[in-house]
Formats: sequence, C-alpha cells, structure tokens
Amino acid sequence: MRPVRVSGDMTRLLVTGGEVLMPSMELLRADIVVDQETGLIEAIGPAVGETYATGQRVDATDSVVMPGLINAHTHAAMTLFRGVADDKPLDRWLREDIWPLEEHLDAAAVRVGTELAVLEMIRSGTTCFADMYFFMPAVVEVVEACGIRARLGRGVVTVGKDDAEMTDDVEASLSFASEYANAAGGRIQTAFMPHSLTTVSADALEWAVPAAREAGLRIHYHANETEAEVTPIREREGVSPLRYAADRGMLDPGDFIAHGVHLDPTEVDLLTEAHVGVIHCPASNMKLASGMAPVQQLLDAGATVGLGTDGAASNNDLDMFGEMRDAAMIGKLASDDAAAMDAASVLEIATVGGAAALGMPGGIIEVGAAADLAIVGMDAPHLVPDHDPVSHLVYAASGRDVRHTICDGRVLMEERQVVDVDVDAVCERAQATAAQLVADAAD
Amino acid sequence: MRPVRVSGDMTRLLVTGGEVLMPSMELLRADIVVDQETGLIEAIGPAVGETYATGQRVDATDSVVMPGLINAHTHAAMTLFRGVADDKPLDRWLREDIWPLEEHLDAAAVRVGTELAVLEMIRSGTTCFADMYFFMPAVVEVVEACGIRARLGRGVVTVGKDDAEMTDDVEASLSFASEYANAAGGRIQTAFMPHSLTTVSADALEWAVPAAREAGLRIHYHANETEAEVTPIREREGVSPLRYAADRGMLDPGDFIAHGVHLDPTEVDLLTEAHVGVIHCPASNMKLASGMAPVQQLLDAGATVGLGTDGAASNNDLDMFGEMRDAAMIGKLASDDAAAMDAASVLEIATVGGAAALGMPGGIIEVGAAADLAIVGMDAPHLVPDHDPVSHLVYAASGRDVRHTICDGRVLMEERQVVDVDVDAVCERAQATAAQLVADAAD
Repeated sequence: MRPVRVSGDMTRLLVTGGEVLMPSMELLRADIVVDQETGLIEAIGPAVGETYATGQRVDATDSVVMPGLINAHTHAAMTLFRGVADDKPLDRWLREDIWPLEEHLDAAAVRVGTELAVLEMIRSGTTCFADMYFFMPAVVEVVEACGIRARLGRGVVTVGKDDAEMTDDVEASLSFASEYANAAGGRIQTAFMPHSLTTVSADALEWAVPAAREAGLRIHYHANETEAEVTPIREREGVSPLRYAADRGMLDPGDFIAHGVHLDPTEVDLLTEAHVGVIHCPASNMKLASGMAPVQQLLDAGATVGLGTDGAASNNDLDMFGEMRDAAMIGKLASDDAAAMDAASVLEIATVGGAAALGMPGGIIEVGAAADLAIVGMDAPHLVPDHDPVSHLVYAASGRDVRHTICDGRVLMEERQVVDVDVDAVCERAQATAAQLVADAAD
Repeated sequence: MRPVRVSGDMTRLLVTGGEVLMPSMELLRADIVVDQETGLIEAIGPAVGETYATGQRVDATDSVVMPGLINAHTHAAMTLFRGVADDKPLDRWLREDIWPLEEHLDAAAVRVGTELAVLEMIRSGTTCFADMYFFMPAVVEVVEACGIRARLGRGVVTVGKDDAEMTDDVEASLSFASEYANAAGGRIQTAFMPHSLTTVSADALEWAVPAAREAGLRIHYHANETEAEVTPIREREGVSPLRYAADRGMLDPGDFIAHGVHLDPTEVDLLTEAHVGVIHCPASNMKLASGMAPVQQLLDAGATVGLGTDGAASNNDLDMFGEMRDAAMIGKLASDDAAAMDAASVLEIATVGGAAALGMPGGIIEVGAAADLAIVGMDAPHLVPDHDPVSHLVYAASGRDVRHTICDGRVLMEERQVVDVDVDAVCERAQATAAQLVADAAD
C-alpha cells in the first residue's frame, strides 16, 4: 500500500448532510468539520459545513456518521489462515493447524496478511486495531502506509523454549514496543504482549514485567479464555488467574486483557478496580466453544470493555458490525436476559470502550476528538424502515454498508473505494502467500 | 412488483464458469443448464454450457453456485417492525410492542411489508420461504409477482377470543390454505398454521386439526420456543408439549414446527420418528434470550432440520448467511463442542434440510432438481484466501456477496440488480407504511 495522498491545499475536511451519532447515542443532523493538520474534529453542527467555501467534501446524505470502530484484539496477518481449519476446539486448532502453519511465517508473509486485514478493516469502518503477532516491523510498515491507527505488540510464547530462547523472545517484544512507540506520527502505539498466563512461564514474567514497566509499557495478554487456562493456574498457584496476574504486576491501569470468558466475581472486581480493559471477542468464543463472557456483569461493575474480532482464522472475518451483532446476541444468552447488552451498550464497547481500553484516540464524536469516522449508508432495503438507526447499526447493518472511512482526518475509503490501494493486487498476494504456507506446512 | 419478464425465445438458461456446490458439499467446476419451460436443472458438467449456442447466460466466474437458501420460518411483513422494539424478552416484546402494532395492520400494509421482505431475501440469495402471518392473499400476490417460492399460512391465535371469533379465525386459516395450495404455477404451497400450543386453545385444536387433515393440509406452528411455552402445558396436561401435540394429531409427517429450543430427549425422538421438520431460528432465540436449541442432537438423532430467520423484528434482517453463521456459532455453544454444527451441516440445514422440512422443491443441485440457485462472488477481500469455500459461505460471506439469484429457472437478481423491481419505491412505501402504523398504535 502506498502512503495516503494529502493534497497540499486541502487542510480541511467537511462531512456533510449526515446524521451524527453523538456520545449520548442520539442522532443529530449535523455536518462535521475536520482540521486535517491536527487530525481533530474542529466543529459539529447543523449545516456548519456550509460556512466553508473550500475543503475536501465527503457526502453523508442518508447516512449515519459514527465513530470509527475499534477492533481491540486481533492477530491481523491470520487472514492468511481464514478458513484453513474450522470446527475444532482452541487447543487442537492451535496445535494441529495454526502453530504448524505459523512456523513458516516470515516478515513478507506477515506484511501480506496484514495488508489484507487492514484492507478488510478499512472497508468495514474500522479505524483502529490492537494487534498481537510476530514480525511486527512488517505490521508497522503496513499501518504507516495505509493511514489506520493501531496499538501493536510482538507476542511472546515461552512453552517449549530453553532459557536463552525465552530471553530472546521477551527481549524482542520489549525492544519492539520501545522502538515503535509513537511511530507513524503517533498513529502507532505499542505494548508488551506476553501471549497468555499459561503460555508464558512464571520465570519469564518475573523479570519481563518489571522490565516492561521500566520502559513505560502497557501489557496486553490473553486471559481466562477457556477453562484450560484457568484450572492449571488455580491448581498450581491456588489463586485465580487474574489474582496471579495482579501478584506479578500485570494488572496496572492501561493494561488490557483479551477474552475474559471464565471470570469469577473476584476477578470482575479486580479488573474493574485496576482499570484494566477487557476485550470481548464473542465470535471467537462461540466458534471455539470457549464459552460466554460475563460482559454485562463487567459493564455493570464499571469495567472498561472493548470489542475485538480476534484473528480471522477463528471468526472468520474482521467485520466489527458482525462482531457487534454477536456481542448483543451472546450477551443476552450469557445473562439469560433479552435486555442485556442492548444496542447502545454494544455500540459503546465497539467505539469509546475500545478507545479507553487501548488508550488510543477516537471512539467518540466531539469537538477536539480525533477525526476517526465511519459513514454508514442507511438506505439499503435491509435497513428500512428507519425506526431506530442505533438498532440497525448493531442488529442489521454490516461492514458492507460503510460508504466512507476516515482516520486521523484522512479519507481512507470514499464511496467504498479504498484510496490508493490496489485491492486485486492485495488479494492476489495474500492468495499466493497463503497457498505457499499451506504447501510448506504439508512438507 | 411487476411479474418477472420472460423473453419468448429464451427457454434455456446457462450458468457458466462457476464452482458448483454439489450435494456431497464438494465443489465441481461446472456449468449448469436450466430448462426454463420446466424450471428444472437439465445438465451439470464441466463446460457443458459451451454446447449451447443460444440461451440466457449468467456469469458465475470467481463464484460459487449453491442451492438457493430456504428461509424456513419467517413472518415476512414484520420487516415493517424492524428495529421498532429491541432488547426485550419474547412475552413483553409481543404484548407491549408487536401486538399493539399488528392490530393496525391491513392487507395493504402486509403487501408492502412482504414486498420489502421478498426484496431483501432475493438480494441475499433466498429462493424459498415459509411465512406465517395475516392478510395472506396479499402475500400470495407478492410471491406470485416476484418469482420466489413459498409455503404460506394464515396464523391462528385464539387467546382472548370468544367462540365465534375463534371459529372464524380457524376457518379463515383453513380456507386460505385450501384455496391457494399450488398457486403461482406451483411456486406457492400452503399449510394450516395455528400460532402455538399455548396461544391456540385445546378446544379449537380439537376440531381444527381433523378439519385440516380432511383438507389434506400440513400443519406448522411455534413449539417449545421458551420455558413459558413448556411449563404451562406440563402443569396442565402432565405431558411434554410435543407429546400433547402428538396426542392431538399435530405431529404427522410433513408437519413442521418452529424453534424447538426447550426439547427434552423424548421430544427429540418424537420429532424424529414422526418425520416432522424442526425449523431452527438461532438469531431470534439469542435476541429474545429464549435459549439454545439442541440442533446437533436433532441432527444426530436423524431429525429433519431447517433454518429460518423468524421475523425481521427479532433478528433484525432476513439474511440467511448471517443465520448460517449464527447457527454454527450457537450450535457449538449449545453442544459445548467446537466440532458441533460444522460448516457443511449448517449449509445442509439452510438448503436441503429446509426443502425437506417444508416439502418444497429446491435445496439441492442435481439434474432434475428445481433450478433454485444463489451465485455467490468469492473474490472480495473478506473471502480471500480460498482455503475452503464451504467455510467461507458459513463463516465469512454475507448476503451482500450474492451476485445472482435464480428461482424456478428464472433470474430474479442479476449482478445485484433485482429484475423488474423498483427498489427505491419498495423502500419508500415500506417507510411510509411503517411510520403510519407507529402513529396509529400511539393514538
């Protein structure tokens, strides 16, 4: 992907004629004025766009202007493994299919898979994502070029590794996080990302966590995704996994965990009191039969909750609209209450909640906020009649309804055309790379 | 909608260049030849389309040709109530919102709502649906004009009615079913449709069921959707709801029930042995927090299972691709097994299973079968790479990926343009009618 083009004389972006989703979850017929120099929203108001004679205009007629969606937990390059193995539980899926394929990954493959992921995310209105994977400088290149926002980290797994390998792995994650913090003009932030509490040894955490704090890094990891991640820690340590994490200094404000499916009430309190974000991944939790996270309980307790697709291999897409629908659906089942995880709550975790969990800009439309926006066409038959656009965004819309995607004040997609990206070329590269990985793994 | 146009000289339809989803769930690169006089598939084979010089051609390059989807339980005109009330349990949702609105329905409103529903279904690859609603001759008109296939019935609810009203209601359902059986050149079939075992009195069923059998009618009803539909029957009758139904002659081969969420093992056996179809409605069951149907158990027992969206007010769309994804997702949770409801099983219930449950043509691609087809473009970024197209259809595709829809040998949608339908006019009528119903109900 080539860098986003910015015309020299266009320093103002006008989003006109839409219904703006305000932080109250009410809609306001208003224009939005964006200062492209700062990437921030300068003004919001009825017909305020008419006062400007110049500036790039984006048409939002018959559309809702909402905060860009925040995909708060994914493994972007796993788009290469979309559909390669389905209908298996987490442990077998990882050991039999995913890990053998991942052994053959290199920086070029990760770049190609991430390009595909970012293309899919921009097309479906996502403006920021959190990524835990490998060969992360390749991910930096893609994010830098494509104009999206991300919090990135190199995953650390120590199982099956000797001390030297373990040390190398941790140091690679720490040095990546330090080197690339604030890259791409601040669109890229980083974190130290040990894979999980069961796949990274207590010995490694013992020195890695203080080192991460020394470097001022947030920590992100998988926690309590399956029973198999809870029971061994309870048996070995005699405490809950998140108590174990807290005792190791891994539950500081600004940290965020993925999944949190099997949480006991003391862990809900721990997460809430520590101001640690919980990233809900409903599709992955259903597809791998991991279980139903207590998301409504987390929100009731006052926890910070974001929403994520997880990798495309356990989803199998990166469409945050599908993820919102899934969050509402499974949220009602989990609470045995049709009123749980209502549409507004779901929209919040997918936007402002994700921004808070990741400590990233965006997720809210207000003057001074980052101009990260998704403009969703609301006139397709499946979105008629217009009783409640908030309901439609969660229950009936899909990423395919997004017309324009704007991040940091730049238009990344206009009328469903991703700017400066050769879609066919990205798809062809991904196809060829994926086929090669499968062939390599079969050897 | 105007009737589908058929050019006089075009009696053969050629679907060329696609990958055909065969009954084995394997893909075969093949053309399909359709005899438009009979509406049946005449030939399937590699490049077989090239042997015909004339005939209407449908391009299936880079696409999967699959059986048209069968939406085996819906209330089509409830598109008018899409998003009007969400995040409430079934009982309150019906009493506080839906029933007060439905009191103001008339034939014109049902016609408009059904037009919108059928438009949405054709756009997302559905070629047949089962509809239980009111003012059904209006539904007949829409189905006749638009070229889709349907099994239709007028709903019967006797709660709160006196004997005369009850009799009128039952007779209206019986006479509709008799009058319109085999309408629209056989594209329309009918059934007697008492709403449920709790909303139709035992007294009414006592004479209505034998009358329906006398007229040779199948019976379709809601059963075991919530605990509140199970407990009262168990308490009053001392038997399970489906034992109660069987004792009243409502469990004959060809009958089909909707939902079947709260089934005990004896009821699974009853349904299986009676060859009664069970229509799974996963989105509705999640959205209303009704529960998780034991769908994998039903399939393991050998039951006939179809898939349905239920009405748009509890979904909130009629996209059977979303429904397939939901069925896979909730099926794994319900069985606590990621291998349950695998992609092929889900595709089967959405196609051949639904056809069997409804006793309708279609659902399978083979010579002599009805030419009811959905042609799905597989080259969009969210469907790359092509490791497993069957997985993609269930886990990653949406109705928006459908390029062409064919029913009874006629092209209803070509390159995403629904033939002979003014989409904007349908949407405008639905919008105006829905707004009027809300205003009427508020009076």
